[in-house]
Amino acid sequence: MNKIIVLKSRPERTPQSDNFKFIEEATPEAGENEVLLKTKYISVDPYLRGRMRDEESYIPPFKVGEPIESMLVAEVTESNNSNYKKGDFVSGMLAWKEYQSIHPKQLNKLDKDLAPLSAYLGILGLTGLTAHLALKHIGKPKNGETLVVSGAAGAVGSIAGQIGKIKGCRVVGTAGTDEKVNQITKEFGFDEGINYKTTENMQKVLAKKCPDGIDVYFDNVGGEILDAVLQNINKFARIINCGAISLYNKKEVPTGPRPEGILIKKSALMQGFLVRNHAQEYEEAIKELAGWLKTGKLKYDETIVKGFENTPGAFIDLFEGKNKGKMIVEL
Amino acid sequence: MNKIIVLKSRPERTPQSDNFKFIEEATPEAGENEVLLKTKYISVDPYLRGRMRDEESYIPPFKVGEPIESMLVAEVTESNNSNYKKGDFVSGMLAWKEYQSIHPKQLNKLDKDLAPLSAYLGILGLTGLTAHLALKHIGKPKNGETLVVSGAAGAVGSIAGQIGKIKGCRVVGTAGTDEKVNQITKEFGFDEGINYKTTENMQKVLAKKCPDGIDVYFDNVGGEILDAVLQNINKFARIINCGAISLYNKKEVPTGPRPEGILIKKSALMQGFLVRNHAQEYEEAIKELAGWLKTGKLKYDETIVKGFENTPGAFIDLFEGKNKGKMIVEL
Repeated sequence: MNKIIVLKSRPERTPQSDNFKFIEEATPEAGENEVLLKTKYISVDPYLRGRMRDEESYIPPFKVGEPIESMLVAEVTESNNSNYKKGDFVSGMLAWKEYQSIHPKQLNKLDKDLAPLSAYLGILGLTGLTAHLALKHIGKPKNGETLVVSGAAGAVGSIAGQIGKIKGCRVVGTAGTDEKVNQITKEFGFDEGINYKTTENMQKVLAKKCPDGIDVYFDNVGGEILDAVLQNINKFARIINCGAISLYNKKEVPTGPRPEGILIKKSALMQGFLVRNHAQEYEEAIKELAGWLKTGKLKYDETIVKGFENTPGAFIDLFEGKNKGKMIVEL
Repeated sequence: MNKIIVLKSRPERTPQSDNFKFIEEATPEAGENEVLLKTKYISVDPYLRGRMRDEESYIPPFKVGEPIESMLVAEVTESNNSNYKKGDFVSGMLAWKEYQSIHPKQLNKLDKDLAPLSAYLGILGLTGLTAHLALKHIGKPKNGETLVVSGAAGAVGSIAGQIGKIKGCRVVGTAGTDEKVNQITKEFGFDEGINYKTTENMQKVLAKKCPDGIDVYFDNVGGEILDAVLQNINKFARIINCGAISLYNKKEVPTGPRPEGILIKKSALMQGFLVRNHAQEYEEAIKELAGWLKTGKLKYDETIVKGFENTPGAFIDLFEGKNKGKMIVEL
């Protein structure tokens, strides 16, 4: 039998394991022109929380009773499509199923020699692409500028900070444990790290760690760290609104200091970034990322959780910050 | 004797007449290479409120006991500078004095035949330039898109809306009286107007008046209208943070719903605009504005208050919305 994870109910705040249900169906076979895929790795990401809400967004919400989907790496185990053969590895936006048969038009073939397969869900997948393309299009970090990254030990943040170093920036990261702060400076080459959980006055600490002010802010968390950054930005600062994990589980509309006054005063910009708007640039960007990876300029971290049955738990753990780097489930 | 208006004390909230003081000094004479200027028109603008605060900003704060300054139109009454002759009219960032003698390096010579002199403080001055250049650099309105303008009957807003019409947009404006709403639709050609003071649910009314959503928002007021606009923006929306008059007189940091979630969801942009960053584009932009003015595509409105002694009052009245279009004091 084939196991499948469906959305049982919409989370009210932080997702709970009883929001998910495991169901079983007969293992499918490859239909005409289809490939049968065996799931190898599942990407669990904070943005999936948004799709669990019953509201219009940039992608339609998940339906209650239907499978969750995210980026997966899978192996082709049967193929009725001439472009794919048994043993090929692919990635794509796929359902949380052990096996699935699909028409392969939206799959990417993976090169096992370029990087380990799980990397295609992280540094060479949407998270690496997000870090790279958001900096390219919005952040535009220049040599000598100061870049602040929140969620700096996370999948996107750790790459964003390293690209900042490649571009010649002073890079300061925030994270939620001393271990993570240690990791971003020791392992990922950030100049400074701040544990936001043990920091009382973030505005002051940022001012100290960024003596020349902040030029670019790569925001993965939103909320109070953004407020503190805004108090320290330079003229013409660029803020990338990439994620807002600190707000995703709030039921009421979160409030905070209004940014418009500071944006005017500093001729600064805040811009939302969605990597999906840049799909035509993926191929080139993956090559650039792979190049930096090969020459040792980029390092990455993964938290790999084993077992399909642990997928909901791995997703829930994201909101506790239990991952270091990209959170991935291995089947 | 020469009358001068100085900042007597910093306003705490809304500026009051006792924040200003009139002093007198001997009427100056033109020094070496200087011109003696007789003030004709004084521009009073909401942004001056910011300079009355004792805090670092894009221009230094006014000092208590020193003259206020803003854009003025003045006549050259004596000249020791070969580039200027008696009878020339100039504009520049000048002190609130009846007469002043200065070195003319930061003055602009005005062409009386292109437009009435007061227009150089409005449609051909910083307000017209602000509307035009902010739309050009941030708003980028495209044919068929929807542009919303707040403070739509104001100096900047009324021009921004008309440029939106020139660019082929549906243009919806907000203002604080029925008379102003009437004016923007009847006189300035906006498609729709909303009286925000008599509107209970701005979000709903905006949704109705902008059936295709909002692509560009030219924000002169900040605060709750911005909140309501954010709930109605389209993908890739551009929000120009040009002014925030609704917040300028608040003593505490104003709070409101956090925008970062919506900015991400809509890949939208909020960007502060200061016309001073674009000084090298003024000459060309004034020509474009004057062209639209000549062909009747742009209209403008002025509220002219007579008498130097009424300058503080005219400034204070801005915060009550007592002006229609550009507020100017005529001496």
